[in-house]
Amino acid sequence: MFDRLSGATRLFPIIGDPIRYVESPVRLSRTFEERGSDGICVPMQVPADDLDAVMAGLTAARNVDGILVTMPHKFTPFAHCATSSERARRLGVVSVIRRNPDRTWHGDMLDGLAFVKAQKDHGARPEGARVLLVGAGGAGSAIAIALLEAGVSDLVIHDADQSRVTSLLELVDDLGHGRANAGPPDPTGCDLVCNATPLGMADGDPLPVDPALLTSSMFVGDVIAGHGLTPFLAAARAAGCRTADGGHMVEAAQDVMADFLLKAPER
Amino acid sequence: MFDRLSGATRLFPIIGDPIRYVESPVRLSRTFEERGSDGICVPMQVPADDLDAVMAGLTAARNVDGILVTMPHKFTPFAHCATSSERARRLGVVSVIRRNPDRTWHGDMLDGLAFVKAQKDHGARPEGARVLLVGAGGAGSAIAIALLEAGVSDLVIHDADQSRVTSLLELVDDLGHGRANAGPPDPTGCDLVCNATPLGMADGDPLPVDPALLTSSMFVGDVIAGHGLTPFLAAARAAGCRTADGGHMVEAAQDVMADFLLKAPER
Repeated sequence: MFDRLSGATRLFPIIGDPIRYVESPVRLSRTFEERGSDGICVPMQVPADDLDAVMAGLTAARNVDGILVTMPHKFTPFAHCATSSERARRLGVVSVIRRNPDRTWHGDMLDGLAFVKAQKDHGARPEGARVLLVGAGGAGSAIAIALLEAGVSDLVIHDADQSRVTSLLELVDDLGHGRANAGPPDPTGCDLVCNATPLGMADGDPLPVDPALLTSSMFVGDVIAGHGLTPFLAAARAAGCRTADGGHMVEAAQDVMADFLLKAPER
Repeated sequence: MFDRLSGATRLFPIIGDPIRYVESPVRLSRTFEERGSDGICVPMQVPADDLDAVMAGLTAARNVDGILVTMPHKFTPFAHCATSSERARRLGVVSVIRRNPDRTWHGDMLDGLAFVKAQKDHGARPEGARVLLVGAGGAGSAIAIALLEAGVSDLVIHDADQSRVTSLLELVDDLGHGRANAGPPDPTGCDLVCNATPLGMADGDPLPVDPALLTSSMFVGDVIAGHGLTPFLAAARAAGCRTADGGHMVEAAQDVMADFLLKAPER
């Protein structure tokens, strides 16, 4: 079973707390294997206060080639990166880190990319599309950037907290892609409808969008994973929509992360 | 292949430099699995100067339950242990570390135990035996303690460097087991003959003991691993002796380490 594990194995720890429910150790290690890489992803349970000590240790270990970052770590890992992608800088957050040629860290934030890939993998076509995005928190912000980077022409953003929408619009203002605007959670005329709120995690949550307004031409995506079919996606399917759920996003994330982590440092 | 790897996996890194040739990641992970443990041993390449940073990081990570230590790390990991075994204290060296109930580290030095187990597994009976030990360096010192702990009644120690023998005799002087003395590398009258020198690693090395003095009643053990059948063991077999080689010691070490690492902290 552990034939692939050896002294030559390269390590890609995923750091978070709690850590026991993350799926990347098995999923990403399999993806590495499919790509002929000798890397494995191992869990490391790291409380927020201990992040700096663990980062220093992982930085010193010569066969640690990358790090995955999950809750509760948000902004501190970004500070450990000497370089990062444009989207990571805008968000101030990294989800994955790999080595630069001088062994410093290069960070990126791939959650939005994984979400968009899941939509496309299941039939959505973001290029030139009109999109309703509900939720402008951390996940929604990453998704907004990824949607605009994917060529969305009109992005309508809604959040119960208007200040979040305002901040996010400022963040994407000069991205140089499609237009982004604040708007009500009305999907009428949209090609793609995205839930990036936590609604659907708890029983009895209201739906992020009125399901009576969904039509079969819309593609509906949801970030909620691990809670079965959410009532929102169930309503979307009943309306004849194609859908992608949070599980599909987790699945897409493995490929997106492997693309990033296995990329040789730019010299 | 990686079904056993999950977010709940417990980590037991082996730290050293170089690290690519160590066998514990696959061997010890298999042993853990055979014992129903969810632990895996992963390699971490850690140069001497980076040991403190890596130890601090591993100490902070909540799912790191133990650490294996290999070259070039000798004395520094001992300093990171709040408690240790009597033999580790005498030697000032640890080869394995596990958690105390307060999450500090408890260290032990198991190389000697692994050597003695390999001899016993292949038919040697150290209890009450007369033993010739050639080599009083790090490996020889650990083996001397383990032999005396295993009930050897007469231990003759030889080393080309007489000062090492003197230091080792002082180290084991009050162990309260059999007698230890300095002597020539003459196996006459011995039940067990042990090579703990590096002789046998390089072509053309002299033999640690004159093979003409070996008789078939003697059990002959060697610490040299990874160099095939050493000329010394070949000569011992030609003399009709039973033998155990360095590979057997590495094999025995997995069980001895798993015994130590999977033991619940004493509360």
